[in-house]
Amino acid sequence: MDISKYIEELGRRAKEASFFLRSVLPGEKNKALYGIADGIEAHTERIGEANRKDCDRGRKKGLSEAFLDRLALTDSRIRDMAESVREIARFEDPVGRVTACRRPQGFVLEKVTIPIGVIAMIYESRPNVTVDAAALCLKSSNACILRGGSDAFESNVVLADIIQGAIEEAGVPKDAVCYVERTEHEGVDRLVTLQGLVDLVIPRGGESLVRAVTRKAAVPVIKHYKGVCHLFVDASAQMEKALQVVQNAKMQRPATCNALETLLVHEDITSAFLPGLPGALEGVEIRGCEKTREILPFVKPATEDDYYEEYSDLILTVKVVGSVDEAIRHIERYGSSHTDGILSEDIHNIERFTQAVDSAVVTVNASTRLSDGGVFGLGAEIGISTDKLHARGPMGIGELLTYKWVVRGNGDIRR
Amino acid sequence: MDISKYIEELGRRAKEASFFLRSVLPGEKNKALYGIADGIEAHTERIGEANRKDCDRGRKKGLSEAFLDRLALTDSRIRDMAESVREIARFEDPVGRVTACRRPQGFVLEKVTIPIGVIAMIYESRPNVTVDAAALCLKSSNACILRGGSDAFESNVVLADIIQGAIEEAGVPKDAVCYVERTEHEGVDRLVTLQGLVDLVIPRGGESLVRAVTRKAAVPVIKHYKGVCHLFVDASAQMEKALQVVQNAKMQRPATCNALETLLVHEDITSAFLPGLPGALEGVEIRGCEKTREILPFVKPATEDDYYEEYSDLILTVKVVGSVDEAIRHIERYGSSHTDGILSEDIHNIERFTQAVDSAVVTVNASTRLSDGGVFGLGAEIGISTDKLHARGPMGIGELLTYKWVVRGNGDIRR
Repeated sequence: MDISKYIEELGRRAKEASFFLRSVLPGEKNKALYGIADGIEAHTERIGEANRKDCDRGRKKGLSEAFLDRLALTDSRIRDMAESVREIARFEDPVGRVTACRRPQGFVLEKVTIPIGVIAMIYESRPNVTVDAAALCLKSSNACILRGGSDAFESNVVLADIIQGAIEEAGVPKDAVCYVERTEHEGVDRLVTLQGLVDLVIPRGGESLVRAVTRKAAVPVIKHYKGVCHLFVDASAQMEKALQVVQNAKMQRPATCNALETLLVHEDITSAFLPGLPGALEGVEIRGCEKTREILPFVKPATEDDYYEEYSDLILTVKVVGSVDEAIRHIERYGSSHTDGILSEDIHNIERFTQAVDSAVVTVNASTRLSDGGVFGLGAEIGISTDKLHARGPMGIGELLTYKWVVRGNGDIRR
Repeated sequence: MDISKYIEELGRRAKEASFFLRSVLPGEKNKALYGIADGIEAHTERIGEANRKDCDRGRKKGLSEAFLDRLALTDSRIRDMAESVREIARFEDPVGRVTACRRPQGFVLEKVTIPIGVIAMIYESRPNVTVDAAALCLKSSNACILRGGSDAFESNVVLADIIQGAIEEAGVPKDAVCYVERTEHEGVDRLVTLQGLVDLVIPRGGESLVRAVTRKAAVPVIKHYKGVCHLFVDASAQMEKALQVVQNAKMQRPATCNALETLLVHEDITSAFLPGLPGALEGVEIRGCEKTREILPFVKPATEDDYYEEYSDLILTVKVVGSVDEAIRHIERYGSSHTDGILSEDIHNIERFTQAVDSAVVTVNASTRLSDGGVFGLGAEIGISTDKLHARGPMGIGELLTYKWVVRGNGDIRR
């Protein structure tokens, strides 16, 4: 079949399933979710086999070890996938929550949470995203169309098949979770232009993937391009606390998008703060501005490009700034509106910083690594948004919902 | 200046003003708003003069009387504009509202309402939109770039000048309200692609304007294309109440987007309900399906096109359906997800309808005309959204806000 027709057909099927999901009951959804978890565990061998094909192909193709590691599904990772679906099943149901008031005219006005409809997810190598996305969309009563990376194709197709079997057995139409079993790039292009069938696109992956999807999309997209996260060490910061937070933000998991990339240091404390930095960040390559190198002459010089860079690695740019306002301006210019923080004991500077920095998450005396849906208590995270509309920062199940208004009257008219 | 450069320059100025607005105080905004209101009244003559130029040009151009009426600013309309700004000033300030909790890890997590940033409004003839949009954006601490219809150019430029003068006097940068003083269409095209400078586009006007803006936009758009609103008269409906509601929905202000366009009638009550319809809708042209014409043989036959039509006029399509589900399917197919309602005394049908109809506003035994920001208590309305993300249905000041997360710790790290 023509790829464009194939995608349209998937869109129609997902839309049809979304009609069913508008009135699905929480128990039906949870039955489907536990069925998915059990199905994944029961088919551990089949999943492992498909995954080995992906890994073998990837190895021949010369994919990096880091990439192959993200791709690989061991038995314990398969168990973890199943367990994460059970966790999602256990969340309180977010759909159909009503806030209501009686308006002075007499009628009752309700605002009701409802699913968005059909969500298209476009993502890269990790096959567990297939399971997480399906489970989060199902829990929020959304149909989804999943399009994973071609390097995980065999794994994803098997996982999607297990998911569809399980939800059908629970009485939910299998098209509630559609998987794009075609790898042509034109498929993605068509998917993001299915106006009237797809209600939202969430791309997850590297900046180039996200930019390509956004450029071509005709339906709304929620996304984050990159995470160039900053911490600003104010003159009033407590040195030990600051070093600990910087260490955690940079080193605890450097490949994540909320890891620290650029450290801004107030000029009044360079000689007190900077000498301790290399010791606290053992194993991290530091790239410093000129003033940083006056104190730490052995570090590499930072270039203009470094300030824009999301290293996702054990590298840190350090820049000395003259004031909280200079720090704010630096973040405005080079940042990605993801997560940026201040380390300070001065309430005026803290307030100035939290007001002026226009990032999804602003931290005060805390690690940027805390910017996370799980840490925030939103439940499992479907992504992080650096957009400003609909959802900002970590997105949990609640961010996969919209609302409708219901006017309940008794012959009420407009006067 | 090249139109593209001109628009980029406006974008940069509005963005710069939006930085100031991030920490503007409620009192400063209100001072600016009262200043705008006073300025409008003080310059009644100047506004009237500019408006006469627009009206004269429009008359020569052969614009319709209805169009010229929307364009015209009488002294009392000018007073009304000023008064509506004062009303907006009196609203409670919506910015900086905090919901907070202490997370189990110890830190405090805040969710804070903040302005979106820079909002571009693209609209057609009515010059009062210039004033309303400026006031609503200012109250919500957003900068705005306004681009009104060329037929109201002289009026809009004078109003924008008065607004800028007033806000500058109140200590707010005048670029907080920018007006596009150029009428080239390329200006609109550039405006809606100013990524990084414009955060949101709200087009207001006919469907073709909104579609053109949406097609070209590279920044997020919130919009409604049209309002093909339905009422379904269920077999259990109380006839008198139903007739009153239908009359109000169709006739109270037929040109508005929440006016009734298609009436669906349950087949079991056609002979009881339909005969009373022409009397209740005196002056309304009825177009009926075949079954309607069995009871009302003198009405025009409705065509397939009629079902898609937003008449915005004293015309009503009437269609007989066999069940609540057939009504739901009709609305799904022909509707515009704006406002649709059921007239029924049967709670099961009411629940089925309110769950399954995926419109921004669903009414139960109430007129579609109640679907309005003022009626809902949202304050002045900046538009209506039939989109599903961010805002749905009537949009008030609260819908011009986004939020940020603030993590307040004391050396907190991720474990």
